[in-house]
Amino acid sequence: MRRYTTPWLEDVLVTLFREAGASEEVSRTTSSILIEGDLLGHHTHGVKLANGYLKDLKSGHARGDASLLESRQISPVAAAYDGHYILGPYLVQKALEQSADAARTSGIGIVSIKRSHHIACLASYLKPFVDQGLMPIIMTSDPAVKSVAPYGGLEPVYTPNPIAMGIPSRIQPIMLDVSMSTVTNGSVAKAKAEGSRLDHPVILSNQGVVSDNPADYFTDPQGSILPLGGREFGHKGFAMGLMVEALTSALGGFGRKDDPSGWGASVTVMVIDPALFAGSSDFLDETDHLVEACLQAKPVDPERPVRLPGQSGLRRRTEFLDQGIPLPGEVVAELRSAIEDSSLKGTLDV
Amino acid sequence: MRRYTTPWLEDVLVTLFREAGASEEVSRTTSSILIEGDLLGHHTHGVKLANGYLKDLKSGHARGDASLLESRQISPVAAAYDGHYILGPYLVQKALEQSADAARTSGIGIVSIKRSHHIACLASYLKPFVDQGLMPIIMTSDPAVKSVAPYGGLEPVYTPNPIAMGIPSRIQPIMLDVSMSTVTNGSVAKAKAEGSRLDHPVILSNQGVVSDNPADYFTDPQGSILPLGGREFGHKGFAMGLMVEALTSALGGFGRKDDPSGWGASVTVMVIDPALFAGSSDFLDETDHLVEACLQAKPVDPERPVRLPGQSGLRRRTEFLDQGIPLPGEVVAELRSAIEDSSLKGTLDV
Repeated sequence: MRRYTTPWLEDVLVTLFREAGASEEVSRTTSSILIEGDLLGHHTHGVKLANGYLKDLKSGHARGDASLLESRQISPVAAAYDGHYILGPYLVQKALEQSADAARTSGIGIVSIKRSHHIACLASYLKPFVDQGLMPIIMTSDPAVKSVAPYGGLEPVYTPNPIAMGIPSRIQPIMLDVSMSTVTNGSVAKAKAEGSRLDHPVILSNQGVVSDNPADYFTDPQGSILPLGGREFGHKGFAMGLMVEALTSALGGFGRKDDPSGWGASVTVMVIDPALFAGSSDFLDETDHLVEACLQAKPVDPERPVRLPGQSGLRRRTEFLDQGIPLPGEVVAELRSAIEDSSLKGTLDV
Repeated sequence: MRRYTTPWLEDVLVTLFREAGASEEVSRTTSSILIEGDLLGHHTHGVKLANGYLKDLKSGHARGDASLLESRQISPVAAAYDGHYILGPYLVQKALEQSADAARTSGIGIVSIKRSHHIACLASYLKPFVDQGLMPIIMTSDPAVKSVAPYGGLEPVYTPNPIAMGIPSRIQPIMLDVSMSTVTNGSVAKAKAEGSRLDHPVILSNQGVVSDNPADYFTDPQGSILPLGGREFGHKGFAMGLMVEALTSALGGFGRKDDPSGWGASVTVMVIDPALFAGSSDFLDETDHLVEACLQAKPVDPERPVRLPGQSGLRRRTEFLDQGIPLPGEVVAELRSAIEDSSLKGTLDV
């Protein structure tokens, strides 16, 4: 399988975003966050998305001009952005950097972002901040989509609402990125496209029947995805989903009440600097202890030792940086399609 | 069934805590937080706990002297407490008030607490802050207890690690309080005491067999509680459990590495003031929209409409404030036992 190097991909993507009218910094940040998704092995949320982003830039729904960002400083530690649908990676990266600066002087920083365009893979943002000893947290909801039903209900109301966080440790960092639903919208769409069943019965049909068939989601009225915890403990996933809704769409003041359409996201990021709390040394002693206890716990299956969130991704990242990224066929197809519309057409062997 | 009024319970508990050496403010706060647990219907985490708290005060493990609190101000929005095992409700209440003050001027406030004594029911703290339009968040882990195994592992490493949060809405507030494990330590202990099975197979035996028998937890080596998400999606509950560990024990710099014993808690509280972000009006318009969409979603069972987190508790609270709290027999038994050791002995019909 052909492998694509990171610098090559970056050159291509930056060129494509620049030609679609995005400014230099927006193009660079978006490209590197997309590539980071593939480096971590999340190929559905990496370079594959570029073609869709470019289409939205060309249609005018997504914006590439960084100067459109309206940022209101609430206090030295808090800010509220109106993103005006600028490409999400630029907005999230900027919000994280601003929060990290606040965290380094005040312990914590927070930025809420309304009207972001799609923000790609949440895990892709974490490593640079974790490498600096910080704890970045990202939460997001998409007020244009309804896919998860409240626990006990049949009608979808909200989105999978992921939470991502990076936790420094001297042994290996923890990088978690989990939705508050059983599965993501993407998993359901993928199973449908492949004509396959889902791995587990996580769809609730519009008749209240639990099913592993994606066709039971794509009905009229629509089915829904079960919250994390499923039929037995879905009240917990529902509660956490509402937490993310409140901390993103409600905090930003723009959400389901506004009935938006198209690719978008409400996002809140926070960064905490442990050095200012108990100090780095005590903090890392504790996370090291926790990491070690988890990794050394006797496994259920002797062939499969316990893995920490983010561990496989970081291993892949090291390999892919060294040997290039083996992009799956559907990613290459999207990339080829994006190049067809650009000056790069015919000049590259993709 | 006899009902106990809130003022009567408060008089009794404050007297008991004062006689056990706790200062006035510690006694009052602890009493009212315990009673609030019963008002919300969480009888395992209410007045029932007083007897154990009093025993720990008398043994010297728990402290009742508020002046022992060491508080270090990190910045205008952040503080770190060393609680020296002062009764948890006093510490958490103080941390929330301090965070709320910071939130009202800066958008957010955060306090990390190490070496707290037990903090009772997390939901009990939320309502006064939500009533002020704020979003309080409480997270806790107990570094003296190991009950949940990392996903894919057999050996328990950490605790259920609950997250609680209050979300204002004009229609009805959302008050969530959920552990990142399938069930709590308390549920397992209760089933064992009653000689019953758990409602669902949430115990992982030390042989890796999933079971609903609490006896499979109390073995040597110990069994464990499955993380939220269970066998299929437990990687998500595991990730969230690690998030809470990092934000509580690691941030406080005191945790499993210190191998503490006895009742204790690592706690982090945050308060966010939506008024300083998008403004109360846009915030409440969005939470109202969300609350209404959830409550009006067609239910799976026509007899059981969708309920929001905290809804039943708030309904009970109104009833119990008006008509008194019908304390279960085991709560009354603990209260009687506490009174036996006090000057109230023989003076009250409990």
